[in-house]
Amino acid sequence: MTALSHTLPLTPEKEVFPTKRATSPALEDILGEAFPILDHGFIRVVDYMGNDSAIVQAARVSYGKGTKKVSEDQGLINYLMRHRHTTPFEMCEIKFHLKMPIFVARQWLRHRTASVNEYSARYSVLDKEFYVPAPENLNTQSAINNQGRGEVLEGDEANRVLYFLKNDSLTSYQHYQEMLGLDASGHPNQGNAPTVARELARMNLPVNFYTQLYWKIDLHNFMHFISLRADTHAQYEIRVYAAKMLEILKAWLPMTYHGFMEYRMHGQMLSKSGIDALRRALKGEHMTKENSGMTAREWGELLNDFPEIALRQD
Amino acid sequence: MTALSHTLPLTPEKEVFPTKRATSPALEDILGEAFPILDHGFIRVVDYMGNDSAIVQAARVSYGKGTKKVSEDQGLINYLMRHRHTTPFEMCEIKFHLKMPIFVARQWLRHRTASVNEYSARYSVLDKEFYVPAPENLNTQSAINNQGRGEVLEGDEANRVLYFLKNDSLTSYQHYQEMLGLDASGHPNQGNAPTVARELARMNLPVNFYTQLYWKIDLHNFMHFISLRADTHAQYEIRVYAAKMLEILKAWLPMTYHGFMEYRMHGQMLSKSGIDALRRALKGEHMTKENSGMTAREWGELLNDFPEIALRQD
Amino acid sequence: MTALSHTLPLTPEKEVFPTKRATSPALEDILGEAFPILDHGFIRVVDYMGNDSAIVQAARVSYGKGTKKVSEDQGLINYLMRHRHTTPFEMCEIKFHLKMPIFVARQWLRHRTASVNEYSARYSVLDKEFYVPAPENLNTQSAINNQGRGEVLEGDEANRVLYFLKNDSLTSYQHYQEMLGLDASGHPNQGNAPTVARELARMNLPVNFYTQLYWKIDLHNFMHFISLRADTHAQYEIRVYAAKMLEILKAWLPMTYHGFMEYRMHGQMLSKSGIDALRRALKGEHMTKENSGMTAREWGELLNDFPEIALRQD
Amino acid sequence: MTALSHTLPLTPEKEVFPTKRATSPALEDILGEAFPILDHGFIRVVDYMGNDSAIVQAARVSYGKGTKKVSEDQGLINYLMRHRHTTPFEMCEIKFHLKMPIFVARQWLRHRTASVNEYSARYSVLDKEFYVPAPENLNTQSAINNQGRGEVLEGDEANRVLYFLKNDSLTSYQHYQEMLGLDASGHPNQGNAPTVARELARMNLPVNFYTQLYWKIDLHNFMHFISLRADTHAQYEIRVYAAKMLEILKAWLPMTYHGFMEYRMHGQMLSKSGIDALRRALKGEHMTKENSGMTAREWGELLNDFPEIALRQD
Repeated sequence: MTALSHTLPLTPEKEVFPTKRATSPALEDILGEAFPILDHGFIRVVDYMGNDSAIVQAARVSYGKGTKKVSEDQGLINYLMRHRHTTPFEMCEIKFHLKMPIFVARQWLRHRTASVNEYSARYSVLDKEFYVPAPENLNTQSAINNQGRGEVLEGDEANRVLYFLKNDSLTSYQHYQEMLGLDASGHPNQGNAPTVARELARMNLPVNFYTQLYWKIDLHNFMHFISLRADTHAQYEIRVYAAKMLEILKAWLPMTYHGFMEYRMHGQMLSKSGIDALRRALKGEHMTKENSGMTAREWGELLNDFPEIALRQD
Repeated sequence: MTALSHTLPLTPEKEVFPTKRATSPALEDILGEAFPILDHGFIRVVDYMGNDSAIVQAARVSYGKGTKKVSEDQGLINYLMRHRHTTPFEMCEIKFHLKMPIFVARQWLRHRTASVNEYSARYSVLDKEFYVPAPENLNTQSAINNQGRGEVLEGDEANRVLYFLKNDSLTSYQHYQEMLGLDASGHPNQGNAPTVARELARMNLPVNFYTQLYWKIDLHNFMHFISLRADTHAQYEIRVYAAKMLEILKAWLPMTYHGFMEYRMHGQMLSKSGIDALRRALKGEHMTKENSGMTAREWGELLNDFPEIALRQD
Repeated sequence: MTALSHTLPLTPEKEVFPTKRATSPALEDILGEAFPILDHGFIRVVDYMGNDSAIVQAARVSYGKGTKKVSEDQGLINYLMRHRHTTPFEMCEIKFHLKMPIFVARQWLRHRTASVNEYSARYSVLDKEFYVPAPENLNTQSAINNQGRGEVLEGDEANRVLYFLKNDSLTSYQHYQEMLGLDASGHPNQGNAPTVARELARMNLPVNFYTQLYWKIDLHNFMHFISLRADTHAQYEIRVYAAKMLEILKAWLPMTYHGFMEYRMHGQMLSKSGIDALRRALKGEHMTKENSGMTAREWGELLNDFPEIALRQD
Repeated sequence: MTALSHTLPLTPEKEVFPTKRATSPALEDILGEAFPILDHGFIRVVDYMGNDSAIVQAARVSYGKGTKKVSEDQGLINYLMRHRHTTPFEMCEIKFHLKMPIFVARQWLRHRTASVNEYSARYSVLDKEFYVPAPENLNTQSAINNQGRGEVLEGDEANRVLYFLKNDSLTSYQHYQEMLGLDASGHPNQGNAPTVARELARMNLPVNFYTQLYWKIDLHNFMHFISLRADTHAQYEIRVYAAKMLEILKAWLPMTYHGFMEYRMHGQMLSKSGIDALRRALKGEHMTKENSGMTAREWGELLNDFPEIALRQD
């Protein structure tokens, strides 16, 4: 993490100010702290707005005088989550300073509902930091999922891949520096031969190099991001960021976290056919893929969530 | 303002908490205070995120190591404003509690980039509060601008309009209460004859009745809102809200306010023809509507901004 | 519908042009046709972009060479819908000309993801058209749902409500015309006493008056709109618009409609507790509200979707 | 362009259908045609919605009966453009199939207002296509602009850069194929040693490799994109795409194009200080950087737009 201090204005932010704003003490505790992710990345909460009470307060504007009956905050938050009343969750914001490989940033920035400032390789020189997977995260192509991973890769195959990834990154970066007229420690070479523009030289770097960004998002879209990227279908290298963010959500907004886990992360969307199959099974009917009318994949997904359908089929 | 306390959870928010977040002391001073607007409306800052330094900090992520030269914060903010680098301004947020007539809210909510929770007249009973213009804000239809106002309306015409506005509002509200089975003080009538649903009864109320909302927006879109709604083309009844918000911006972010006034509010977009006319005038050419090739309206607008073009035309 | 022709440029749009664009023949058949909704409203499809094949085509960009296996369009659309791969659905657009009461437009425009041009009452005079519910749509306040309706209102109570709604609308409109210096047929009165600005006079009109708008939205957000507004929790007066739009979706994109019904409209989101209760019931456990750990409302909702849980409880 | 046909479902789209929709004949002429950009990229219009008349039609909804006076379409479009009435321009859409280097796509996708489907390197194997600048587009770093280019790079320095870019790309791709167990022609190697997942192998490829995407955007945001990316401050490699899109805009919507050039592309935003300096110069005052109160950079920009200020200064 040493490179961090010289590349970006990481003011320690230890100073404490008085505020009349809604505050989350547990989030204050970790404000400004950089949590390491992957081999060179990090997540750092820079700022936030709102807490569980602020969500409840905004929701109660809508209900006006009628709110007397809704006495309990956790109950109201669950109600909002269950009925997808999303606007009160938009009333909170969180801002991060993030460092991640470019190929992760490419997935990340497909989420269009956040505000972003990214390190510019047109303007500045990128650091010599690139991602190489730990051996336990180097997997084969999944045989059944075109977008997924299979077993851990081992032996010669693993060594060869790690060698390529590391060596090609080093070579690319060395040439990047040469094109910019920099020596290996990043200082301008003696002599002043003209050198190519940074915006051109950078195109030699592979997508495992690290970039940095400020990323600000409202709570509703933050939870949507987590639900997609902490999911098992997401690539491991983005999932580790989302998993850490889920922990941060828990510290920031314990009630919202509880509702989010109950109704989103551990909830499940059922199709019409899925509902039908469950109801018939509850009535005691022997259900099979065939009599369910579902495709093999859908039936498999239903069995995965409700293995009891199969267990009682004899 | 008395109705306020019983309709919405206006916690006094006098309590002070410690925070490590970016803080704006001048905005803290007015946090939670309701500034009266029109006859029954108000603006109240509920929360905010970021300050001038937070904008600068986000901008400098993009420039990485290259930022050493940009030494001065006001200069960088001006640069961002001038070159429409808008993303650092998205890094701040402000949240309001607002009360305004429905016809103002209708214009307000056409801005789609904010988060909103509005008082629900399906759920709760609206208060007996409606807007009647002060005599000095009662104008004739503009003869030259289809969307604007002309002179102040006076005498019998003024009295008649004020009478209609006030009397029809009172009548509508009285019938609204009757349809809901409420007496004049808002309590349920004796007896329990069935009454019509609130979502139906409310359709009897005119658009000068007041509604309330929580409204949260990022700084970039907030300035865009102000630039459109504090403009002289905006209807007076929304302009008074925008004008107050401009004051709030000044307290919150003095540097950004300065740049906003210099490059937006007091700036001017010139067309190709306008630039051409100015350049020819600078060279000493006698410019007229005819030789400018501009329409009468465009020529008039140019003269309005640069009266010197006309002054030196002989 | 006669007022329509003189208020807006309703070009007949009977002319047929050749195009190389993706086309939906069944939607072409009804293009430009105004379908009446409520007593004076309508829905009219003005333009559209894309068809089922265009969605599939965009999805397959993502899969590149790997797409050979996905041979069937309906299967791919179902897959996208099931896994919430929403971007291919954003590739279609639909544009409507709509006429609806202001209180419906107020709910409608809370959806921020559409493009809108609305009739301006600052610029033009509103027509004498207002909504009065048909007797069968005049309901009491629901006793159990703060935002809903109960039984049909009958007898004197119904007559009184209808009288208020109709009479107050007529009175307000008459005064609106007087304030604008118009006679009952909308022509300027003799004499030229100054009259109040349109932007002020209009504030006398209740929210059951009709407004008109052009509304354009992408398919992903269109389906989201329908799923919320065709739902039984939506107010009847907006639900009738959403129901017609569901028919239009069926004509436009039959495959997408099929997937939408299967996975959204007739699908169901289950919470962690709901999944748990179903699994225990499938294993033969006797489930009750108490041993489910759910709230009364949640348990009621689960029973509503899966009445078999209760049926087999003895 | 040969690789195109086998990677994506490029249906020839020669078939012609009848439609009642608004049509742009000049855009129909080039629909589906791939215009080459850079060494392997292209722009291809896949679909569109609306034409100049559709913009005018949407604008006139707002004006209702009051529109009789606005007789001329070009005049109305200019008016909308001049007064930043942007919603009627949102009523048109255009959809592209694009191929561009990853580092260009990284800039492109920072525009969050479009819908995107991109080729997935998790799902499919990327083609052996990478960008190497033509010798005349290989520039030195600008000495005055941290984000810009200076002179054309020549001689040994140029050869060295081109060698690095080409050679490192070839090496990276060769190793990419090896990691995936593919031979040089892209076929699976004999033997079935396990190979690494595609989502991991792709991280070895530099950002000059080509990606493909479907990109759909409304006209308002499309013009905003062009105004930023066809600007001289944009990197050459994205500017060539924006320049071609400006031609496409001209074919699609000739009136809108005319207004866009007059009020945006060839227009200019003046600051308060700039307006002040111009007015004083028009009055005959001898203006200098010093008495203008502007910074050196702002004064330079003003002189650049209005060189006559300097010319008449003696």
